[in-house]
Amino acid sequence: MKNSPSSASSPNKESYRPLPPPYLEIEERVRYSETDQMGVAHNKGYFEWFEIGRTEYCRKKQIPYKDIEARGHALVVVEAFCRYKKALRYDEPFLIRVALREMTPKKAVFGYELRTKDDLALIAHGYTTHIAVNKKGEVCPLPEDLVEKMKRPLAD
Amino acid sequence: MKNSPSSASSPNKESYRPLPPPYLEIEERVRYSETDQMGVAHNKGYFEWFEIGRTEYCRKKQIPYKDIEARGHALVVVEAFCRYKKALRYDEPFLIRVALREMTPKKAVFGYELRTKDDLALIAHGYTTHIAVNKKGEVCPLPEDLVEKMKRPLAD
Amino acid sequence: MKNSPSSASSPNKESYRPLPPPYLEIEERVRYSETDQMGVAHNKGYFEWFEIGRTEYCRKKQIPYKDIEARGHALVVVEAFCRYKKALRYDEPFLIRVALREMTPKKAVFGYELRTKDDLALIAHGYTTHIAVNKKGEVCPLPEDLVEKMKRPLAD
Amino acid sequence: MKNSPSSASSPNKESYRPLPPPYLEIEERVRYSETDQMGVAHNKGYFEWFEIGRTEYCRKKQIPYKDIEARGHALVVVEAFCRYKKALRYDEPFLIRVALREMTPKKAVFGYELRTKDDLALIAHGYTTHIAVNKKGEVCPLPEDLVEKMKRPLAD
Repeated sequence: MKNSPSSASSPNKESYRPLPPPYLEIEERVRYSETDQMGVAHNKGYFEWFEIGRTEYCRKKQIPYKDIEARGHALVVVEAFCRYKKALRYDEPFLIRVALREMTPKKAVFGYELRTKDDLALIAHGYTTHIAVNKKGEVCPLPEDLVEKMKRPLAD
Repeated sequence: MKNSPSSASSPNKESYRPLPPPYLEIEERVRYSETDQMGVAHNKGYFEWFEIGRTEYCRKKQIPYKDIEARGHALVVVEAFCRYKKALRYDEPFLIRVALREMTPKKAVFGYELRTKDDLALIAHGYTTHIAVNKKGEVCPLPEDLVEKMKRPLAD
Repeated sequence: MKNSPSSASSPNKESYRPLPPPYLEIEERVRYSETDQMGVAHNKGYFEWFEIGRTEYCRKKQIPYKDIEARGHALVVVEAFCRYKKALRYDEPFLIRVALREMTPKKAVFGYELRTKDDLALIAHGYTTHIAVNKKGEVCPLPEDLVEKMKRPLAD
Repeated sequence: MKNSPSSASSPNKESYRPLPPPYLEIEERVRYSETDQMGVAHNKGYFEWFEIGRTEYCRKKQIPYKDIEARGHALVVVEAFCRYKKALRYDEPFLIRVALREMTPKKAVFGYELRTKDDLALIAHGYTTHIAVNKKGEVCPLPEDLVEKMKRPLAD
């Protein structure tokens, strides 16, 4: 087997950029059901935590995500990436940090960091890219008021 | 908010490379519990399917993953990426294709594609990067016989 | 603390009744993501397996569950019960057996057994009770043709 | 098909008994990933919420569940039951109430109620029965100090 060049197989290797403040920060704990037999949180759970982060982010911007869907719009995930740096154990408290890296009427990119509660060590970082669609799943720009609200700086 | 350049926020945008044959192909169906209220498979499920793919890949290479763990080794996920191209509905049959993109004693990169069963349309593609560790979670090269077995071409 | 009488707190203790043949039998394997840090399949996964069982049961009766929903009906879960007898490990193959214990236009009760593939040892048994509703979630009898199809004996 | 008598197929039908105070109460919200295509929380999620409830219950009693495992003991689930009364929607806040219904060195039964945050309407109720085991999975009584702590009334 010929190995692929690392740059191709792991294009994100060098891409860590600290989340620009202000970001939203929320606290979570690892559920027992989120662990696996290695004794740590399973890799798929991180994407649920990212989602919890962006849900709270939208709420903080006064745009509960359910209201976006109630108006006939959705932000579907088209890319998801996570870099795992440090294992998380059952019941361990940790912080989810979320920032909006890019926002246009048709596209949003959220950035995330997970950090330990105690000493803020980096557990994982990643991003999700979203495209705005209508109820039929067709690309459809978000209404301008939603885009403006999303772009406003996070209040402290 | 200043938008990040796309290249930074979505470094994987241009990275689709077809899986090099021979790849392993297995069939799955979307479980009801894997759908969300948008009526399609939720984004986190794709990482479970990737995992099912690499479990079967290891089995096909005569290295059931549980045997790797029984020998005191593990391949922990350090990166996971998925690009979503097409929604998957409840009960829809689809194909998981897996190939090993890179394999060294300390690192493995698996590549994946999901395709519709009917017309082989691309549903998603992605990769996971793994580091070899021992039971304490310390980086530790895989035994040579495992690496050799993993590198052998897939039998048809 | 005064202990409750066992009969009240565990009303199902004595209720194991073997599944009456003919039942439908399908094979599954435990996914890595379905294990927890105790090293066995997590308790919530069994309810997903029950669901996979009834999906296949409906398909076998020529009533794919998605067709029931497409006709504006649904069978919502109103009760779920599982008795766990034996742990299941990662990658272990096992059998899901499903039978319809009760079927009226407004109500269905499915019974389940999980058994090891090798020696048919009982892993778990349980049931789910479902009420027929319309798209608004109101109780609404299933169309007669669906009830008749569901009641027909399973073909071999 | 001959219908089973209801009493046999749904033995829990009449078993709702209000949770005796004092119970522990915690608040949660429905995650997007916990919904299904019916637009409501999927039935398996309730068992995760029950588990979150008992984790917090043990913590409140000064016996973090991870400490029980660290001492070589575990409380494995041998029965799980849920009665679903009212659907839960994405992002809906709700209350998990937990009480210990039975506690002996070899057995624990937790009771649960989920209620809406706004008007305390009953969403679901259920219980889980647990057997005390050692690391090999053999039945093994819990140390007396743990049993005593668990039996102490919940402080307000």
